[in-house]
Amino acid sequence: MAIGDFSFFHTLRVRWAEADMQGVVFNGHYLTYFDVGFTEYWRASGLEGPLDQAAAGKELFARKSSIEYLAPARFDDMLDIYVRCARLGNSSMGMLIEIHRQAPGAAQHLISGELVYVYADTAARRAARLPDSWRATLARFEKTAIAQ
Amino acid sequence: MAIGDFSFFHTLRVRWAEADMQGVVFNGHYLTYFDVGFTEYWRASGLEGPLDQAAAGKELFARKSSIEYLAPARFDDMLDIYVRCARLGNSSMGMLIEIHRQAPGAAQHLISGELVYVYADTAARRAARLPDSWRATLARFEKTAIAQ
Amino acid sequence: MAIGDFSFFHTLRVRWAEADMQGVVFNGHYLTYFDVGFTEYWRASGLEGPLDQAAAGKELFARKSSIEYLAPARFDDMLDIYVRCARLGNSSMGMLIEIHRQAPGAAQHLISGELVYVYADTAARRAARLPDSWRATLARFEKTAIAQ
Amino acid sequence: MAIGDFSFFHTLRVRWAEADMQGVVFNGHYLTYFDVGFTEYWRASGLEGPLDQAAAGKELFARKSSIEYLAPARFDDMLDIYVRCARLGNSSMGMLIEIHRQAPGAAQHLISGELVYVYADTAARRAARLPDSWRATLARFEKTAIAQ
Repeated sequence: MAIGDFSFFHTLRVRWAEADMQGVVFNGHYLTYFDVGFTEYWRASGLEGPLDQAAAGKELFARKSSIEYLAPARFDDMLDIYVRCARLGNSSMGMLIEIHRQAPGAAQHLISGELVYVYADTAARRAARLPDSWRATLARFEKTAIAQ
Repeated sequence: MAIGDFSFFHTLRVRWAEADMQGVVFNGHYLTYFDVGFTEYWRASGLEGPLDQAAAGKELFARKSSIEYLAPARFDDMLDIYVRCARLGNSSMGMLIEIHRQAPGAAQHLISGELVYVYADTAARRAARLPDSWRATLARFEKTAIAQ
Repeated sequence: MAIGDFSFFHTLRVRWAEADMQGVVFNGHYLTYFDVGFTEYWRASGLEGPLDQAAAGKELFARKSSIEYLAPARFDDMLDIYVRCARLGNSSMGMLIEIHRQAPGAAQHLISGELVYVYADTAARRAARLPDSWRATLARFEKTAIAQ
Repeated sequence: MAIGDFSFFHTLRVRWAEADMQGVVFNGHYLTYFDVGFTEYWRASGLEGPLDQAAAGKELFARKSSIEYLAPARFDDMLDIYVRCARLGNSSMGMLIEIHRQAPGAAQHLISGELVYVYADTAARRAARLPDSWRATLARFEKTAIAQ
């Protein structure tokens, strides 16, 4: 996976409340950053967001997540959250995330992660097939092929 | 891995602020629960905590984490956070976590997770060998053998 | 206001993720502690909680809050969150909060605060009269008179 | 206080994890927004930030905060956090905050708040006089007079 394989990133700045006594971002906050990145990826792709999905009785819920901590982010760092859809199953989607710290001349790769979501019918609490329109939109949005 | 293999758990109640618009705990908060469980595991084992480690110029930092979301926790749920040390390397330690919701007659397994920490010299920013006294204490604290 | 005027307190321990780079609890987390205290006060009083209120189309929403920071809480501190209903208006309720750190022989008063909630009809988005049954229950639950 | 009296605002978007089961931002998160606004106000004014202050053995700590909740913010709202220095005492500074939701043609005023910070010598744990250079810089940065 090279950074050039990502079609999208979103930038945010580390908040004071997110750094702990060791002076580094508490590990759980990276999942919040992943979620912000995923929300913005979704918006940029043009697909309907969680409120529209909810209105249609559907939702994406998290099934798995993993984080590899390569180097710590610190208060006030500007972070680029790279997001890519790597796999679309029948009802699941696999996202890859990388977080890089902006630095003049030399961004630093801090975090790698994966998220697996499942698309579901909220009332029935049962997995639902991802809409074909989403597959087409995401295929256009990504530079590189999405695994099935 | 059976629940009987865990020597320790800590109970907490889901806070209002931790449940999202879908009525379920936001996925990132589980890493906070893991951290609370790990802190209490450490206290129960009798080992020196993060403040004592910091005073000695050492720290445990997170290297990897993963979460599998089997079923959602909700506001006001009482959760048992099971914690177990599964592996002790030269400078790394692997922890297994399970979260079960208390329910009369039938606790429900909601979450499985793993944490990998590395013990390090803070000033040198270099991995340090886990103290032998920790290995001995943890071996006594755990019911089942810890992998090397 | 003396501590003896409170009929209720709830104890919690400061989490690692709640302490910032200054080694003290980030100021915003005290409102989470207030909320946990309020939830537990409500449960102890025997009144219906937010989920029951929501099922009846009602809710309590925050109208005002204030916090006075007398001394900082730190990681691992055991905090007693004192909660008292001080005023019941037609649709509003005023709560007083104090947070004291447990310490052998000498608890320390860290935080004083106030919360004002308004009871409302969710669909109409309009204030609703607090039920008389709540007034009676809270009057019994409190040691000292509740202002009108 | 009119919005025209503010010389500064900072924009942020409400995160998914910040909205609760009532579909609105949990009341405690507004203090995080206040803090983000204060950090950016400080940066914009050109004064040394918390890390520089810490290096000099000084810090600003929160002494009081208050929030008035006029209308709720919701997931995905774009919020303008207005920040103004309203008072500079010997060692304390009073900040006024307003949060307005962006909306085409008609921004909505959601939140008003106040923060009081005290400047202190960290080691001595004693209030310190605010530097005259800060007074001069803030007087230039604000449109309207700062009370003494």
